[in-house]
Amino acid sequence: MVDDLATGRIGPDDVVARLRRLPFADLGDALVDHHRTLRQGLPEAVYGPGKTPEQCARIVGEMLDHGTGPVLLTRTSDDQRKAVVAVHGPGLTAGGAVLYRAPGTTRPSAVLVVTAGTADGPVADECLLTLRAHGFEPDRLDDVGVAGLHRLLANVDRVTAADAVVVVAGMEGALASVVGGLTGAPVVAVPSSVGYGASLEGVTALLAMHASCAAGVTVVGIDNGYGAACAVARMLP
Amino acid sequence: MVDDLATGRIGPDDVVARLRRLPFADLGDALVDHHRTLRQGLPEAVYGPGKTPEQCARIVGEMLDHGTGPVLLTRTSDDQRKAVVAVHGPGLTAGGAVLYRAPGTTRPSAVLVVTAGTADGPVADECLLTLRAHGFEPDRLDDVGVAGLHRLLANVDRVTAADAVVVVAGMEGALASVVGGLTGAPVVAVPSSVGYGASLEGVTALLAMHASCAAGVTVVGIDNGYGAACAVARMLP
Amino acid sequence: MVDDLATGRIGPDDVVARLRRLPFADLGDALVDHHRTLRQGLPEAVYGPGKTPEQCARIVGEMLDHGTGPVLLTRTSDDQRKAVVAVHGPGLTAGGAVLYRAPGTTRPSAVLVVTAGTADGPVADECLLTLRAHGFEPDRLDDVGVAGLHRLLANVDRVTAADAVVVVAGMEGALASVVGGLTGAPVVAVPSSVGYGASLEGVTALLAMHASCAAGVTVVGIDNGYGAACAVARMLP
Amino acid sequence: MVDDLATGRIGPDDVVARLRRLPFADLGDALVDHHRTLRQGLPEAVYGPGKTPEQCARIVGEMLDHGTGPVLLTRTSDDQRKAVVAVHGPGLTAGGAVLYRAPGTTRPSAVLVVTAGTADGPVADECLLTLRAHGFEPDRLDDVGVAGLHRLLANVDRVTAADAVVVVAGMEGALASVVGGLTGAPVVAVPSSVGYGASLEGVTALLAMHASCAAGVTVVGIDNGYGAACAVARMLP
Amino acid sequence: MVDDLATGRIGPDDVVARLRRLPFADLGDALVDHHRTLRQGLPEAVYGPGKTPEQCARIVGEMLDHGTGPVLLTRTSDDQRKAVVAVHGPGLTAGGAVLYRAPGTTRPSAVLVVTAGTADGPVADECLLTLRAHGFEPDRLDDVGVAGLHRLLANVDRVTAADAVVVVAGMEGALASVVGGLTGAPVVAVPSSVGYGASLEGVTALLAMHASCAAGVTVVGIDNGYGAACAVARMLP
Amino acid sequence: MVDDLATGRIGPDDVVARLRRLPFADLGDALVDHHRTLRQGLPEAVYGPGKTPEQCARIVGEMLDHGTGPVLLTRTSDDQRKAVVAVHGPGLTAGGAVLYRAPGTTRPSAVLVVTAGTADGPVADECLLTLRAHGFEPDRLDDVGVAGLHRLLANVDRVTAADAVVVVAGMEGALASVVGGLTGAPVVAVPSSVGYGASLEGVTALLAMHASCAAGVTVVGIDNGYGAACAVARMLP
Amino acid sequence: MVDDLATGRIGPDDVVARLRRLPFADLGDALVDHHRTLRQGLPEAVYGPGKTPEQCARIVGEMLDHGTGPVLLTRTSDDQRKAVVAVHGPGLTAGGAVLYRAPGTTRPSAVLVVTAGTADGPVADECLLTLRAHGFEPDRLDDVGVAGLHRLLANVDRVTAADAVVVVAGMEGALASVVGGLTGAPVVAVPSSVGYGASLEGVTALLAMHASCAAGVTVVGIDNGYGAACAVARMLP
Amino acid sequence: MVDDLATGRIGPDDVVARLRRLPFADLGDALVDHHRTLRQGLPEAVYGPGKTPEQCARIVGEMLDHGTGPVLLTRTSDDQRKAVVAVHGPGLTAGGAVLYRAPGTTRPSAVLVVTAGTADGPVADECLLTLRAHGFEPDRLDDVGVAGLHRLLANVDRVTAADAVVVVAGMEGALASVVGGLTGAPVVAVPSSVGYGASLEGVTALLAMHASCAAGVTVVGIDNGYGAACAVARMLP
Repeated sequence: MVDDLATGRIGPDDVVARLRRLPFADLGDALVDHHRTLRQGLPEAVYGPGKTPEQCARIVGEMLDHGTGPVLLTRTSDDQRKAVVAVHGPGLTAGGAVLYRAPGTTRPSAVLVVTAGTADGPVADECLLTLRAHGFEPDRLDDVGVAGLHRLLANVDRVTAADAVVVVAGMEGALASVVGGLTGAPVVAVPSSVGYGASLEGVTALLAMHASCAAGVTVVGIDNGYGAACAVARMLP
Repeated sequence: MVDDLATGRIGPDDVVARLRRLPFADLGDALVDHHRTLRQGLPEAVYGPGKTPEQCARIVGEMLDHGTGPVLLTRTSDDQRKAVVAVHGPGLTAGGAVLYRAPGTTRPSAVLVVTAGTADGPVADECLLTLRAHGFEPDRLDDVGVAGLHRLLANVDRVTAADAVVVVAGMEGALASVVGGLTGAPVVAVPSSVGYGASLEGVTALLAMHASCAAGVTVVGIDNGYGAACAVARMLP
Repeated sequence: MVDDLATGRIGPDDVVARLRRLPFADLGDALVDHHRTLRQGLPEAVYGPGKTPEQCARIVGEMLDHGTGPVLLTRTSDDQRKAVVAVHGPGLTAGGAVLYRAPGTTRPSAVLVVTAGTADGPVADECLLTLRAHGFEPDRLDDVGVAGLHRLLANVDRVTAADAVVVVAGMEGALASVVGGLTGAPVVAVPSSVGYGASLEGVTALLAMHASCAAGVTVVGIDNGYGAACAVARMLP
Repeated sequence: MVDDLATGRIGPDDVVARLRRLPFADLGDALVDHHRTLRQGLPEAVYGPGKTPEQCARIVGEMLDHGTGPVLLTRTSDDQRKAVVAVHGPGLTAGGAVLYRAPGTTRPSAVLVVTAGTADGPVADECLLTLRAHGFEPDRLDDVGVAGLHRLLANVDRVTAADAVVVVAGMEGALASVVGGLTGAPVVAVPSSVGYGASLEGVTALLAMHASCAAGVTVVGIDNGYGAACAVARMLP
Repeated sequence: MVDDLATGRIGPDDVVARLRRLPFADLGDALVDHHRTLRQGLPEAVYGPGKTPEQCARIVGEMLDHGTGPVLLTRTSDDQRKAVVAVHGPGLTAGGAVLYRAPGTTRPSAVLVVTAGTADGPVADECLLTLRAHGFEPDRLDDVGVAGLHRLLANVDRVTAADAVVVVAGMEGALASVVGGLTGAPVVAVPSSVGYGASLEGVTALLAMHASCAAGVTVVGIDNGYGAACAVARMLP
Repeated sequence: MVDDLATGRIGPDDVVARLRRLPFADLGDALVDHHRTLRQGLPEAVYGPGKTPEQCARIVGEMLDHGTGPVLLTRTSDDQRKAVVAVHGPGLTAGGAVLYRAPGTTRPSAVLVVTAGTADGPVADECLLTLRAHGFEPDRLDDVGVAGLHRLLANVDRVTAADAVVVVAGMEGALASVVGGLTGAPVVAVPSSVGYGASLEGVTALLAMHASCAAGVTVVGIDNGYGAACAVARMLP
Repeated sequence: MVDDLATGRIGPDDVVARLRRLPFADLGDALVDHHRTLRQGLPEAVYGPGKTPEQCARIVGEMLDHGTGPVLLTRTSDDQRKAVVAVHGPGLTAGGAVLYRAPGTTRPSAVLVVTAGTADGPVADECLLTLRAHGFEPDRLDDVGVAGLHRLLANVDRVTAADAVVVVAGMEGALASVVGGLTGAPVVAVPSSVGYGASLEGVTALLAMHASCAAGVTVVGIDNGYGAACAVARMLP
Repeated sequence: MVDDLATGRIGPDDVVARLRRLPFADLGDALVDHHRTLRQGLPEAVYGPGKTPEQCARIVGEMLDHGTGPVLLTRTSDDQRKAVVAVHGPGLTAGGAVLYRAPGTTRPSAVLVVTAGTADGPVADECLLTLRAHGFEPDRLDDVGVAGLHRLLANVDRVTAADAVVVVAGMEGALASVVGGLTGAPVVAVPSSVGYGASLEGVTALLAMHASCAAGVTVVGIDNGYGAACAVARMLP
């Protein structure tokens, strides 16, 4: 297309054809993008931090009113969740996130979320709820950190059966490398901020996962269970 | 399976059923794993750094002799490439990698590799050659960094048509966020060490890509075009 | 001048001619510089942290008594604001800052403050109030992060119409690069501490903005909306 | 405009009105943007690193052939400069950059480039040449680091007479704060990688300049004299 | 001496002659060293953090009972100070430290403590109290940060008259370089954790002070007013 | 064994012979590994952070019910300890850890735990309790930091008499180097997060201990008294 | 002993009893400690960097002349090795180290050195040679990184049979955690600088090994194969 | 003075009385300050890096011609030294520095420079030559790192006899803490970039020296032997 444009054979209007189909509403302090679901295949999502409880409730309300798909509010404080629940009802809550209008299982792929330790649970919770918001019915395998390798090996069939594996691990993050070597399916690694001292609040796990010797493992941000689920939603039917 | 094992209903032999099918050869200082292709869907790959030119040539030879699939040698020095080529012929060379027995196009998916600037070229080269080693016929779009947004927008059709997009970008790495917002397909970001000063040899781009506001973008290591291609190979048919 | 001085043709008194016109008062623990407005074109400003509420109120009082221009107290705690308001009245409050004797609109330039997300709001608030203290009537555009590029593009006229643009963005800070490519006017980037994990409390955005591929974008400190406004006040009539 | 678009009163074509006027040529591996000068008020510039000498010569040639304005090649190696000069003649060379078709003095503003020490010279050279490419006739003041304050004070008239000051300083970067306090004009600080040990190759100066107690000083990347000049070109007539 | 020992001419007893004169008492969890005053010329000092209020009171008591010189407790919490004061009386309190048996002015040297801003006050307070514990009668100059150079220059006589200058400065720490250039006397720089964002809690100031272009300025740890005073006590009569 | 497997002389079943003897129980969210004591010679241990008080009590209960050895819960909050104590009784408590079924002294080796200062106490406490859980009767030497070398030298006999020495030190961590030079026995260094400013919450001590000039000193994670004790348990009878 | 000294019952001479037995020679610029072998159980070792080839040869010569035990020169450049070999003969060379007067196998313990990849070889070489200098006959297992877990598992008997295991691994360093979970013997982890990008020249592996979830694994410095061997020599007979 | 000025009793001319006595010459690209010796008590010094050999020779020449005191050129490359020596003769050379017109011993104080290892020699050399340039006759003690404590203790008399001690140490920098505890005289610590891996090119030693538990030790920049000597020159007669 670039050649045609440069030589003048087509007009720039074609360039913007796709951009043009993107209406949105203006709530004053937050542009709500109703067609995002169509554009990216994602449910509507709101990031909680920095918003007042009232803002959270209002934005969730606008999304529920003008759309018909799932609405997900992430990284909420207790006050934010209370304000939203008071107006819109309980929804599904896990890992600090709240989900309204959870879809039924509409996607066929098998997704497995694996954690290295019990303390990685909240990040996995956020990931699982986000996967549900995308229509997956994810599976879960907890507490299989590499220092007790037999626990992972006893579950190796579940790992190899999955169409994608999300690995949540703090400390040294070694689990991602090991899982990456056990399966040829996509592996999305989530460094968690679990641990203390040299764990550097997740930075060590993030670096270690990037230095992984298992080819083709990809990484999302620290504690970003939401992002890992969105990555899976991009990859799988 | 874990329940059954714990209650004693099945024996631990089933646990290791998958592990048992993995023969390998011992070259003395490098275990060569001939079944890796089957296990992970990857071609045989050798990482050059730390090996003598002679070691490189010998290991590539062993892989060519005992297997039948593609053999990829990455991150080579000039001396390593010379030693390998002297023994095994030229192969395909790009981005410091050498590929022998490149497969014909055996995978149907459309993969697009995008770079922010000309200087990201070698990393993209390594990525493209690795994609070819996996049987893809990848497309390429260069020099569309976000400071000149119109260049990317003029090619937005190519971006949205791809089944997966690899984004190679150094400096601030912003291109990954923008591309992530333009497509719902998987986006694999490769921070490159292009740039100077505050680029911190790729660390700034790596951090920025992880902090990306585009949900579901995943990241591989700095300059790791090989890893990005392997990640795509895990995701797509 | 240096040559003349070295050769003895002029005396050193000329060297200090400018310095000599700068009287100031001594409050005991804080020198208040009444001629700063003239010297630098800035309103009187007080930095809150490390001062007791009583100190804040006293210093603001001194400034109000002995000068006639705007007085701005920044980065206040609730207690500091209460103490100041109790003595001097409410003033204008935004982003943790309090402004007394806000000037009417006395500067003709059009300044636009752009944020990537709702959470960047408080930093933008501080910037806007400081711009008002300098006599600007700034405009504001919120929530146009690069992952939803159409939101920014729909407002591209407002961006290109401004005489200067302040970009407040956390996470990966990519918005500064994109805006820098859309306008030839001065762009002042403010990295915000919005985000978690790999955002490193604003350091990632700061580094990314410095590594920006958009030539001529300048950067101020993390969350420093005040500094960005002062930079604009140096640049524009 | 966003309201009108949301309510459907105007079409999205208006949104892209500005983008549409931006033709460009495709050189295969580097999109050359001929209208950049008009769009951003900048000369054509090429970033040398990562390009072969031949690529440098070819891209400079394309720019000279199809445009009429100044062409600036920055951060060149000796080999790159030789290849370009062999084809296009000597041009003006300073600080590793080469300038062709330098404009006469076409801008009236007075710009002063100040260095802390002799070793900051190459960064200042790049800045001065870039300023000339933009049509300024910049002034220069060297070796006035703050440890010998009298040297700066003897030149205070030159500092206060400038319409903008670029401060190049490595080590602790303190000169930017001091200059920022002496003038109300825009001050653009360039941290240089001069120094050793705790200078951390310019990171210390970059951080220090951001933490500057002089309000309204802005900062560009380490050793980025080119960027500082572009920033000034955005600010001044 | 080492030669004599190696050749056997003297016995190792001479080696330990100095060590042998150092009696001390065992309080169970903290060895109190009563002869430290003699050995190093320092008053008895206790570091508060990590000790219970009761431990603080007990250790201070032991020191007061068995010695006759000044006793200084530093970095105390409110609870620690309360516990100590309840048992031993108020003492002199400043900057989180408590001093008992403050000596009269027993040292003739003129020491000046300079701060860049009001917020550096508590660190200066700790330094001044520690200097008093050593028998100095220190002078103080506040709020002379380099962005308002005239404030420092107006007091240049006080700076040059001092036998040693302690400079407390956060943010970019530039004041140490400037003062180092104004006097030939010892300058001890104390980076303070004042500031936010790029100040990195004092690390920026620490690095900047080390990269100082003023030869012979020395640095102590972040916020370590106590250490700076001890350094001065080593230097001056 | 690898040669035999490669040549086909033995079957892969032998490979997994050891793994097969490892039964475990599934508590739902935490796999409890009852044979760990046998496998690694360690008592059962639970890491508190990230678990609710109820989870802590339940897991400790399961361990007490199904095993017979010591059970150690580490890094507990007050609430976690209360919940556990309410169900299972007081146990032994130190350094935030709780120990049930402490064994009598069953190991003959002499272990010495040395601290640089009183503030390192809690880390030493955790280490000592963990050593007791392993059946050692450890000795303790406090407050012998290297700035008062005579205190350590007066106890040099205790250092050289130990079969292993654990050194807990924050700040600059120099004590590990000195102790490493005084004894030929194993020295395990624990960097503690004691100190402020340049101590960087233990990172400085960790780096310094790794850069130690005393050959053969090994290091565990910051504040990881538990890990140091486990390391000793691996080394000594 | 400290109590006795405090109460005056014994004299300080006993304190220094051990120190006194330590004669040494003065070579002018390097004190050579001939009794170190006895004191710490270590062979004589010289650290190459920063010494001229002539200094290396001279110091090795002095050690050979005045002692009778093994002499080990580490981290040599080619020039240093040449100079030493020219004077003292070839010795045993591996991993940049040279060993003279290698002892026969005088220690009974079984030590295993494991590497994650071929590139970790030189660090393992240095470790193995140093172990030989201490009288061990170490075993070696190469290229068993965790991404191909079956390679390690096929050799699990060798791991569990060792009295101590040294694990050399770069990149993410996960191998140390896995090995630590497979054996109850001492595990000494050596982070290697193998890898690029996010490996940060070994810092990532060092941090990851410290954050290891395998209790009781200890760590030495980056690439410090010599230190790991010395640590083992402290632990085992 | 500040009070008098504020109230108008004195004029600002007095403020600049001291500044006025500072003539200097303009060499074009380097202001040479001939009265610096008087102002700060320092010899003339030139910092080599970033200057061409010709610039070095010219600036040294100017200093020799117009002054009468010592002239010191530091951190030279071989080419710089050659160019200077060709013009001005050999001078005294050590640690990369060249000294002309070395004064006889004109200062009475005893200064001791201590190194931890042989590799710290060049930094000590630069320090010793700079001390000589200031008229001291310094003493030197090498290779007394803390891992072999007896070597330092055998020389404790030399340490305690000095009027000031400069401690040069890389790796963990512990020697500064130990020396700081042995003497009450000023101790100036110089972190050196000796070591590898976790030494982080001197940053670890710098941080460790700042976190030192020895009160009153001060620190200069990494490898800055010149700065340490200048610091001593400020302190001692």
